[in-house]
Amino acid sequence: MPYELYYWDGLQGRGEFVRLALEESSADYVDIARGSDGPGQGTKAMLALMGSENEPHIPFAPPFLKDGGLIVPHVANILMYLGPKLGLAPRDEGLRFVANGLQLTIADMLAEVHDTHHPLSTDLYYEDQKEAAKQRSSAFIEQRIPKFLGYFERVLQQNPHGDKQAVGDAPSYVDLSLFQLMEGLHYAFPRAMKSAAKRYPALTALREAVRIRPNIARYLTSDRRLAFNTSGVFRHYPELDQED
Amino acid sequence: MPYELYYWDGLQGRGEFVRLALEESSADYVDIARGSDGPGQGTKAMLALMGSENEPHIPFAPPFLKDGGLIVPHVANILMYLGPKLGLAPRDEGLRFVANGLQLTIADMLAEVHDTHHPLSTDLYYEDQKEAAKQRSSAFIEQRIPKFLGYFERVLQQNPHGDKQAVGDAPSYVDLSLFQLMEGLHYAFPRAMKSAAKRYPALTALREAVRIRPNIARYLTSDRRLAFNTSGVFRHYPELDQED
Repeated sequence: MPYELYYWDGLQGRGEFVRLALEESSADYVDIARGSDGPGQGTKAMLALMGSENEPHIPFAPPFLKDGGLIVPHVANILMYLGPKLGLAPRDEGLRFVANGLQLTIADMLAEVHDTHHPLSTDLYYEDQKEAAKQRSSAFIEQRIPKFLGYFERVLQQNPHGDKQAVGDAPSYVDLSLFQLMEGLHYAFPRAMKSAAKRYPALTALREAVRIRPNIARYLTSDRRLAFNTSGVFRHYPELDQED
Repeated sequence: MPYELYYWDGLQGRGEFVRLALEESSADYVDIARGSDGPGQGTKAMLALMGSENEPHIPFAPPFLKDGGLIVPHVANILMYLGPKLGLAPRDEGLRFVANGLQLTIADMLAEVHDTHHPLSTDLYYEDQKEAAKQRSSAFIEQRIPKFLGYFERVLQQNPHGDKQAVGDAPSYVDLSLFQLMEGLHYAFPRAMKSAAKRYPALTALREAVRIRPNIARYLTSDRRLAFNTSGVFRHYPELDQED
């Protein structure tokens, strides 16, 4: 039975971090909300599941994964669940918690990326919080990007097994997520990221290495990979970007 | 060897969610940053570990747990790691991911609580972003509290094993965290939470049930339980509170 991925159609968003892992390992999966409106398919099916009044384990928000009867919500949780099954998690039990810790730091940074364009309320349009968004973005670019990316760079540099992967001696889902994080930041903040290659060499090399992994390369040119747009977490609003 | 919990001294903060699990299960642990400045003790030791240039798995931020040579960062990750060891996780493997999903939703709500007083930048003082904080808090109270607490109420109500616990048929670390979440919200937003007991009866009953668990009750009156204050995630600024 294929995995069922539930995430909003029309954007990469948080679902993309799960998609990359499924694609890298050629897993059998269905992207439910992108399906036609057949039974159990489409956005309607996703919303019905979220609104269910008898489902024992309801998710708060997409993305979530359904594997048989089990619903697993939250990107890091999904990846911790899928990692070992897809061969994308460290074999060592302890290192799996290290991987999950890194994934949660990526999730924290993502939440801050979201807040650059929605600092006051997720229920207001960007246009109605633009001035606050400028302030938040400026602080994000000046303080938070260096703090987070500097951290991930150190993680790579200090990996005893070398800086080609974030944890252990083999690629994991964390590396795929770091790729996506870098892609998104370069899309949303091209000016702020102009010197990233120089400042974060290991992270930049990892990004390039992931991009040419055969399954990832194939996925990126498929029509399953949507382009970044201003509906996702990463949004390019030139007025929010600045030199670092 | 006792568990070592690393978290900022002087506040409950995110560390408190881990402390409650350790206290409930009478685990042997040391609260490192609250120790005197002996070797490996105190805030200095915590900062040294975070700044280490040869530690293979550095944490991004407190809290983190050290268990022998393993460093586990992030509240939800720590609790997923500790849960089974402390007898505070579901026995069923699948349900552990359900528990982790709930814990991550609590983490998401906490991040939004933090943003009520720091909507523009974590590097600015509250006083320098007060106007934005008012807007963010207002949206939080009107839209986000009902959305999150309404969700947790449904989770309890729809638990096939009854509404006395969030997941499965026995108390877990998630219940302790829901208690702490409710405590914090009542402290920070007493006016907004005035009708909470009526709107979220199962959640309110859970809060009261956790409070009188013997080990928790003992902990809450010990000097290890610090009072809420305006250094933590939950802060009571009357100007940010309003009727719901």
